[in-house]
Amino acid sequence: MSIQNLISAKAELTDGGLPAEPIVLSTRIRLARNLNAHLFPGRASNDEARATYSDCVSALEKLDALKQSYILNISQMENLSRQVLVERRLISRELTEAGEGAGVVISRNQHLSVMINEEDHLRLQVVRSGFNFRKTWAEINAVDSELENHLDYAFSHDFGYLTACPTNLGTGMRASAMLHLPGLVMGEHMEKVVRMVNQLGLAVRGCFGEGSEATGSIFQISNQQTLGEGEDAIINRLINILHAIIEQEHNAREVLLEQKTATVFDKIGRAYGVLTHAHMLSSEEAMAWLSLMRLAVDFGMLPDDSRSLIDRLMMETQPGHIQYAAHSEIEPEKRDVTRARVIREHLRALPDLNFDIRKSEKN
Amino acid sequence: MSIQNLISAKAELTDGGLPAEPIVLSTRIRLARNLNAHLFPGRASNDEARATYSDCVSALEKLDALKQSYILNISQMENLSRQVLVERRLISRELTEAGEGAGVVISRNQHLSVMINEEDHLRLQVVRSGFNFRKTWAEINAVDSELENHLDYAFSHDFGYLTACPTNLGTGMRASAMLHLPGLVMGEHMEKVVRMVNQLGLAVRGCFGEGSEATGSIFQISNQQTLGEGEDAIINRLINILHAIIEQEHNAREVLLEQKTATVFDKIGRAYGVLTHAHMLSSEEAMAWLSLMRLAVDFGMLPDDSRSLIDRLMMETQPGHIQYAAHSEIEPEKRDVTRARVIREHLRALPDLNFDIRKSEKN
Repeated sequence: MSIQNLISAKAELTDGGLPAEPIVLSTRIRLARNLNAHLFPGRASNDEARATYSDCVSALEKLDALKQSYILNISQMENLSRQVLVERRLISRELTEAGEGAGVVISRNQHLSVMINEEDHLRLQVVRSGFNFRKTWAEINAVDSELENHLDYAFSHDFGYLTACPTNLGTGMRASAMLHLPGLVMGEHMEKVVRMVNQLGLAVRGCFGEGSEATGSIFQISNQQTLGEGEDAIINRLINILHAIIEQEHNAREVLLEQKTATVFDKIGRAYGVLTHAHMLSSEEAMAWLSLMRLAVDFGMLPDDSRSLIDRLMMETQPGHIQYAAHSEIEPEKRDVTRARVIREHLRALPDLNFDIRKSEKN
Repeated sequence: MSIQNLISAKAELTDGGLPAEPIVLSTRIRLARNLNAHLFPGRASNDEARATYSDCVSALEKLDALKQSYILNISQMENLSRQVLVERRLISRELTEAGEGAGVVISRNQHLSVMINEEDHLRLQVVRSGFNFRKTWAEINAVDSELENHLDYAFSHDFGYLTACPTNLGTGMRASAMLHLPGLVMGEHMEKVVRMVNQLGLAVRGCFGEGSEATGSIFQISNQQTLGEGEDAIINRLINILHAIIEQEHNAREVLLEQKTATVFDKIGRAYGVLTHAHMLSSEEAMAWLSLMRLAVDFGMLPDDSRSLIDRLMMETQPGHIQYAAHSEIEPEKRDVTRARVIREHLRALPDLNFDIRKSEKN
């Protein structure tokens, strides 16, 4: 399976149909697992890392969920392909910097990916579009149980799953959701939300930038604790807090639309105007404007089914994807020209913004 | 005649058909004249200023060129109407601050306006669209000669026409052209041009801003000397220098289009995108983007006949016009909303930008 197949395939993340809660782009759970038979990747020799890789791949190939999967040896891939995988969130940036034996196995539908020899021997990940923790947990839990039949996991009855870094010890689980929070950002409530969320033991980070000023107003919110609580308890707490944040985002949007109508219409209008007419767009700028297009869909200014196009553009206009599509590493200025053309062509195929939303909003 | 008539009438400045040289928006000549019978406005009492006003109006009413003209007593006008006249360049801002006896007589077609009791007793002005010094001079010269039959001008055989300020002494003439120089501004050549023009005894000023960073890249270039040379010599020199600037502007545009294609297309595309989709626009921002729309017309990206619409919008979206149209003094934020709506509606009626101009450019 080539990366090209992976890019052109419909990926769950951006073709998930109409989500019930558009504020949540995706749900992700990852599990850190290690093998008794080998040293942690940070301490393993090249030979041992290669042995870990081959043990893991053999076991993974046996899983139903990984039939016809992409099996990729990271150290043998070219730079651009690796970057594409990072931008699709199928692997971490850390894995691209790992040495011998680093690899990833990705399911045909791209829901499931398993990194090998990142910080831990195995990092299982399931991503689902929308707000979908039950399904995501059920899926990764099944994969994990099946894999345990084929591999001898490092497990302590006192501590739970053993991991390279103690912050993952126990469940080895990191559950997260990617949230689109332009209302809280525009209303300048994001700092307060981050503080509140941190106090409740969760981590917030911008997905395409840093801190509370994340490009595109897209944030990942995840649990920080992995020890002393079961997976269900961790996930339930996360879900409750996410519900609270989602409600605050809805409120913030309502207040903006009510009290700052012209400002909001102006921002969204400009975003659309620039995206449909600019001839050079940096990835940061594109992300910021596309985020406002996503908000426009939520406000009913664009058809509901354009949301998946926008999500796809957010991913596919990142530098790696743009260069991969151009079949070469191209300089930033030319990338900006290509990015602007791609976005222009796609957005012009949509109907023009409909600002006559006040009545339907009120009902 | 009300100001409303004056606004709704087709004005020469923005309805001049297709200009031979679109870089020159308009040509203007003004003559400063004073009466022997009265003290200069700066030294006149209120009674004397009123006497000057009535002497001038009586004489002006006799002119063929001022049949059915607008005769406006500035001190009795409301603020917004005065601001509209300033924005239309029919009176100076100084006249709105002059006291008793300040007035203006404006011809039906708005080519000719005569200010009374500004710095001098009379300031005659003829404005023509495009690069049109011969016609403009012939017209103002005829008016001046005819007026001299009815008024006793202060004239010295040594110095020529006497004026309140010695910088106008002699011909009392200020000839100027308004030039659209986005190529020189974008190419960062404007400072050099200003220096060159100043050395040749001409003045350059931004029409909607200050210095070489004029909003909208529109500059007024005028003679500074009024003494020691005849009107024809002054005008000929001005025309020659303007030709040189126009050629430099054409060159700068060609270089930009050739070497910075993406940047130029991007600027023009964004300007169009924002103007057709923003919901709030300050007058400075509107001017900057409209200037790029004017350039787009020159490049063949918009139809030739949209230039007059753009010129009209540059004038009619200034604060006074926006408020006058709204029948009240409105706060800046609401003005910005109205301005954006007016521009949006007008520009959306045009065809979309055509960037496929390279071939026609080359031929």
